[in-house]
Amino acid sequence: MEAAEFRRRGKEMVDYIADYLENIEKRQVYPDVEPGYLRSLIPEEAPEEPESYEDVVKDIERVIMPGVTHWHSPYFYAYFPTANSFPAMLADMLCGAIGCIGFSWAASPACTELETVMLDWLGKMLKLPDDFLAGTEGRGGGVIQGTASEASLMALLAARSRVIKLIQADQPDRSETDIISKLLAYSSDQAHSSVERAGMIAGVRMKKISTDSKFAVRGDTLQRALQEDRSAGLIPFYFCATLGTTPSCAFDRITELGPICRAENIWMHIDAAYAGSAFICPEFRPLLNGIEFADSFNFNPHKWLLINFDCSTMWVKNRSDIIGAFKIEPLYLKHDHQESGLVTDYRHWQIPLGRRFRSLKMWFVFRMYGLKGLQAYIRKHVGLAKEFECLVRADQRFEICADVVLGLVCFRLKGSNELTETLLKRINSARKIHLVPCQLAGKFVLRFAICARTIQSRHVHEAWCHISQLASELLQELPH
Amino acid sequence: MEAAEFRRRGKEMVDYIADYLENIEKRQVYPDVEPGYLRSLIPEEAPEEPESYEDVVKDIERVIMPGVTHWHSPYFYAYFPTANSFPAMLADMLCGAIGCIGFSWAASPACTELETVMLDWLGKMLKLPDDFLAGTEGRGGGVIQGTASEASLMALLAARSRVIKLIQADQPDRSETDIISKLLAYSSDQAHSSVERAGMIAGVRMKKISTDSKFAVRGDTLQRALQEDRSAGLIPFYFCATLGTTPSCAFDRITELGPICRAENIWMHIDAAYAGSAFICPEFRPLLNGIEFADSFNFNPHKWLLINFDCSTMWVKNRSDIIGAFKIEPLYLKHDHQESGLVTDYRHWQIPLGRRFRSLKMWFVFRMYGLKGLQAYIRKHVGLAKEFECLVRADQRFEICADVVLGLVCFRLKGSNELTETLLKRINSARKIHLVPCQLAGKFVLRFAICARTIQSRHVHEAWCHISQLASELLQELPH
Repeated sequence: MEAAEFRRRGKEMVDYIADYLENIEKRQVYPDVEPGYLRSLIPEEAPEEPESYEDVVKDIERVIMPGVTHWHSPYFYAYFPTANSFPAMLADMLCGAIGCIGFSWAASPACTELETVMLDWLGKMLKLPDDFLAGTEGRGGGVIQGTASEASLMALLAARSRVIKLIQADQPDRSETDIISKLLAYSSDQAHSSVERAGMIAGVRMKKISTDSKFAVRGDTLQRALQEDRSAGLIPFYFCATLGTTPSCAFDRITELGPICRAENIWMHIDAAYAGSAFICPEFRPLLNGIEFADSFNFNPHKWLLINFDCSTMWVKNRSDIIGAFKIEPLYLKHDHQESGLVTDYRHWQIPLGRRFRSLKMWFVFRMYGLKGLQAYIRKHVGLAKEFECLVRADQRFEICADVVLGLVCFRLKGSNELTETLLKRINSARKIHLVPCQLAGKFVLRFAICARTIQSRHVHEAWCHISQLASELLQELPH
Repeated sequence: MEAAEFRRRGKEMVDYIADYLENIEKRQVYPDVEPGYLRSLIPEEAPEEPESYEDVVKDIERVIMPGVTHWHSPYFYAYFPTANSFPAMLADMLCGAIGCIGFSWAASPACTELETVMLDWLGKMLKLPDDFLAGTEGRGGGVIQGTASEASLMALLAARSRVIKLIQADQPDRSETDIISKLLAYSSDQAHSSVERAGMIAGVRMKKISTDSKFAVRGDTLQRALQEDRSAGLIPFYFCATLGTTPSCAFDRITELGPICRAENIWMHIDAAYAGSAFICPEFRPLLNGIEFADSFNFNPHKWLLINFDCSTMWVKNRSDIIGAFKIEPLYLKHDHQESGLVTDYRHWQIPLGRRFRSLKMWFVFRMYGLKGLQAYIRKHVGLAKEFECLVRADQRFEICADVVLGLVCFRLKGSNELTETLLKRINSARKIHLVPCQLAGKFVLRFAICARTIQSRHVHEAWCHISQLASELLQELPH
């Protein structure tokens, strides 16, 4: 396919995409296919000779769509949202065309520089302390990671490297492997599985700190753990706080935890993967108070800030901490400018070497929505969650299981876990809406997350009627 | 921006992309900007109110393009190629619109299943042993990683976990941290920096094995290292072989190394990031002989197989090895089908949790080019490299520094390193073409990599004339 045909096919694809998204609610949100469905629909091997584009495109509806879970349907309430907007898609098209691999400044200066400035823009929207901004002379700055998992891992690796250097400065003969074997990292028992996984990857012990009745880690609990673990000869070095946990959108008390981490020389990383986007609204910004104690901070604009996956933004106070974690400089990646203070080589900030020109998506979205448009979007979602909460609270058969702070409502049928489990099975089997569960203090709980960009009040009411109806049917079947 | 405006803007963007790629050789391949150029061209903060799309688009040429290194220009010969094709861009547009996050089968069955089948298609094109294919009952299978760095890291983590389990089966009281402190991983001294980095991330020792006169690791060198290191009490567990090294496209002798790794119970991972694409041609497939001894294999179709970044394909013989490395199952990610043999939850195969629907790009490209079209593309690039090699060899002032096997030519001016360094500075300052250097056996060497999809013989000749002219000027300035 050459440029002339691309002009035609690209425009057809633009229309296909617009049609798909305009009519998405007519599609069944969760597919009916059984595991293995796709293999039998297509040949066992790639074709020897080229096929026509018509044949390929026909197969989108025949092969792909029947197996798609439609994350952007207004009937999708599972997991957390993943962002999708037209400005982001336009920017991503441009990103594909430029197709540079921005591992160093020289590999494409615009790719690196726009990223640094966009992270400053976003940091200012969040009112991050100046320490986290790059500016022209700052020691901090931001980077786009692929996912929050990578950000937690990078933070943990930077913390590991910092503590090893610190200890070896005092005890030069102590080996790295010996130090690593004594290291201990902490997170909430509500933290995302990726935080625990980061510990496994880095080969360090990880301890989960128990949470209070609001599912939040408190300062005194961490303090007690630190005392115990230090007396057992371990070296606490990293704490991953969560703002907006995955099960219930709970907020660790970073104003209590931060001063402890600072006093004990522990790297505090803040994972606000979902909730972070809300901090652009003044009314939600207090949830981020305590950020001044953090060494690194991360959230996912690709969840709730209208920027398509992948765009997980991370800031550090001292870029030398993250760069120092494992800087390696082969000759084929060196360039003239790299010792200049103005230059960032983002390959040192991340696990992969290669990276796409992802900041274009941020630039398009921030400009096309404006801060006010983005704030309005967050507020719409929070408002709809509150609306759903009211509906649940008005029904005596149900209970709300965690404070509704942002766009997630955790609820269940009063009574046994089996009851709510059965309700969820029926909800998901009916295929009208899609939800996933979580466990909170031993209870099986339904998570209702406001997800779609195009969701409206009527969808939420429709979803509630449907859930309420299925609950009635279920409760009627029970023996009295 | 709503769907109606996207229809218009998307079509304009399609034309912009087609124009950009059709006229790319008129743009200067490497930019003139100085570090920090971009910040002063745009506001210091995001706008409060939305801007018009016209204003955003105008800034592409004003702000972005002056700072872009044009990787798809036929005058770009640096690093290795990064792929770019129209079918891949069309598929990526669709991927953005569907916008699913395929971390588990249930999160979007089509996303997972197409990936498994596309990896089988590609595995068959490469004539991988059946062990590496998923089929309907296989124990192996493939996955799309973001980059080769992540693939090497995943392989190393899987190997680390396998050896720990093996040792603990014999010595149940031996702690994980104690075992890790004795582990030793190997790679070629020519291996990519990301391989060494993987060892640093995983907290294991890494040793570089020296190479022969062809820059290849040989069996007897590895065997000697193993003996030495075992007698020093270390536990060798992982060897990363490279097929097509970054400096010179050298090939470790996996037919010698594989049997040693098998006998010594060492995980052999093969990193063929660049060269792997060539193995779809029967004449280059012998370079992959020995693959039957490997536990895992990876290469980057996003380099040389016309599939835009990111698409780094990795296969394992035993999927349980990679899944077992750090499987964690929180309730919110569980689904009904996950214990079925047909189901793959790719989140266990990779570092990140989230993942895009990247297999669409493979499907579109394989079908639109056909195997024959892809083979022709590889052969065109190799042919052009040979053409350039001939031009260099015909000039007595230059020498070829490594066998030209695929699309990379390593060459230098005879004489001191300073001479070639000066030549490179002049080449890159002239901005007509763009190259990067490498170090081979103490020599400063220029790498001429055939990169652009649209490159033709005339571009290679033009580049050589230019280099030769600059060399003449340089040599004339020298005192006789």
